[in-house]
Amino acid sequence: MASAGFLPVQPRFGSFTDAVVVCRLYPEIMPIVIAVDAMGSDRAPKPEVEGAILAARNYDVEVMLVGKEHAIRSELREHPAARNLPIHVVPASEVIGMDEHSVANAVRTKRDSSIRVGLRCVRDGDAAGFVSAGNTGAVMATAKMVLGAVPGVDRPALAGAFPTSSGTVSVMLDVGANVDCKPYNLEQFAVMGDIYYRTIFNTRKPRVGLLSIGEEDVKGNQLTKETAPLLRNLSLNFVGNVEGRDLYNGTVEVIVCDGFIGNVALKVSEGLVRAVASLLKESLKATLTRQMGYLLSRRAFEDFKKRMDYSEYGGAPLLGVKGICIVGHGSSNANAVKNAIRVAAEMAEGHIIETIAEEIAAINGKGAGA
Amino acid sequence: MASAGFLPVQPRFGSFTDAVVVCRLYPEIMPIVIAVDAMGSDRAPKPEVEGAILAARNYDVEVMLVGKEHAIRSELREHPAARNLPIHVVPASEVIGMDEHSVANAVRTKRDSSIRVGLRCVRDGDAAGFVSAGNTGAVMATAKMVLGAVPGVDRPALAGAFPTSSGTVSVMLDVGANVDCKPYNLEQFAVMGDIYYRTIFNTRKPRVGLLSIGEEDVKGNQLTKETAPLLRNLSLNFVGNVEGRDLYNGTVEVIVCDGFIGNVALKVSEGLVRAVASLLKESLKATLTRQMGYLLSRRAFEDFKKRMDYSEYGGAPLLGVKGICIVGHGSSNANAVKNAIRVAAEMAEGHIIETIAEEIAAINGKGAGA
Repeated sequence: MASAGFLPVQPRFGSFTDAVVVCRLYPEIMPIVIAVDAMGSDRAPKPEVEGAILAARNYDVEVMLVGKEHAIRSELREHPAARNLPIHVVPASEVIGMDEHSVANAVRTKRDSSIRVGLRCVRDGDAAGFVSAGNTGAVMATAKMVLGAVPGVDRPALAGAFPTSSGTVSVMLDVGANVDCKPYNLEQFAVMGDIYYRTIFNTRKPRVGLLSIGEEDVKGNQLTKETAPLLRNLSLNFVGNVEGRDLYNGTVEVIVCDGFIGNVALKVSEGLVRAVASLLKESLKATLTRQMGYLLSRRAFEDFKKRMDYSEYGGAPLLGVKGICIVGHGSSNANAVKNAIRVAAEMAEGHIIETIAEEIAAINGKGAGA
Repeated sequence: MASAGFLPVQPRFGSFTDAVVVCRLYPEIMPIVIAVDAMGSDRAPKPEVEGAILAARNYDVEVMLVGKEHAIRSELREHPAARNLPIHVVPASEVIGMDEHSVANAVRTKRDSSIRVGLRCVRDGDAAGFVSAGNTGAVMATAKMVLGAVPGVDRPALAGAFPTSSGTVSVMLDVGANVDCKPYNLEQFAVMGDIYYRTIFNTRKPRVGLLSIGEEDVKGNQLTKETAPLLRNLSLNFVGNVEGRDLYNGTVEVIVCDGFIGNVALKVSEGLVRAVASLLKESLKATLTRQMGYLLSRRAFEDFKKRMDYSEYGGAPLLGVKGICIVGHGSSNANAVKNAIRVAAEMAEGHIIETIAEEIAAINGKGAGA
């Protein structure tokens, strides 16, 4: 935290309302405003407040911390040096927990939840994007309800980022928003994933693959066999079927799949990384020689953990809703929150929503005309 | 290799034919015979021959090495100490490669392939089981064709074994034999997985879970929602929905899923383990201190690799065909082949085919009567 330097300070405003008014009058000269669900993560509001401070220091962004005012302000007081940073508190009296009995019910009835209030800020133009490490299902459902879908998008999709052994990042979508997809859903996922990759990872023509169980066209299930011809028809860099192992080897940038499969792939990976870490630790505690070895190579392990750390990529954006919305892991730390804020700001600067609307309209128009 | 001791030698036979004749006359006093596809793995026949030697030394089994006679015999000559072990060569003139243009065509036309000849030995009662590290699709297709399905089993399933952080093994099926499954397919997978786990891992009531994307009953796709009530009705220790991460944490022993999902989970895991190994190696080469650390902790890495090594579990059995058939990874080493032979022998001793036939008949009868 201490290593983060201050950016040249721009004139700031006394109250949140002033900032919003000026923001609307002069959108081009203002820093990008990102709303953060301060009640989302497992240890909220600590990582959110610290992440907001890191982001406000390092990037040209303003942060709205949305949630229980008292809790947020008391956490903010722990960081006196952050007093002059462009961070505002937006009160929301309710919290949707990770263990809600019925997410659908909580989304409907908790009208003043931090998730709902934060997403309303985006809908009303007070914030350019929303970031939450809270209940993924609740964030997705609320985003669809409050923001609505981009015209032409049938189902918004959650895009997860994965580190690869080549040092690149691969993006898989959908990783959990939609089960039982149709071929045209996957077609739209491909278009949105391509746009997201171009916008955030600066790749002009990302390679797009269809997740299957063999590289040959004849391999796969009914869904993949019907989807492949649709993807081949798009003006994407479509490389055909890819397999599960390609998620981590950097041979492809965007991987398209049904949300059930994508979620299983994500959770299997999380479980495996945890098992690897625990097995390795156990082995390294076994003898004194190994412990010494561990001490000497500790920096390597830290490097390694950092490279495997999903928090470097700031969470998964929900693509296809009419506004920027990023869902982080419940175990997000300050670094993950900071990165999610950065990615949300980059998506806003890259006008990703407008691009999705245009390109989806283009393929839908083409389909209708054919 | 050198560490493997000799078991007390039983009277052996001069020729393969003698052994088979005696085997049929006195099935109870004879060691179990396992046929091994000597042409299967990427480096065949070396790992197969070495694995057969290890198995014949360590277990009370006889091994038939099936494949090109000249290649097998010349590899056997490299191990003069193996001369008196109960290992026989069964000639097969053709090989189905890993990269066959059309597997279906190769299975149909290569009537003297090592896979087909080996499975015929099982069908004809000359071997109690068959092990191959060859083309998975070809082994599965040939096994279904040559052995046929156990009466009542609609679709045989491939059961993969995974190490967990608790030190146990979890078994997932199907990992690749069937895509687009119906609920009754998954029901049969659950029954067969339970039997396999009881037989090989000595657990009286393994916990059986249904792979989904949330633990609540309402979570999942159409297939899992329709399958859960069927599994609840069986006399298994069914624990409900499990998630991808449960594959590696030991909270469940048997995980049931469609073969598309299972194959993706398997391949994602393989890719991730490879990426972890490569990222870790890279980090550890970076400085001299780290290299020293690596040298001191090398045994720990070897332990760790061994525990993550799928070869410890000897490959994936194809459950539901009328005979024992185990498919190993193309990169199988001698240890993997040895373990696959051991597991095949244990399955035979445990009368697994008969048990599957009985328990599948019981649930099918129950379904018909209801």
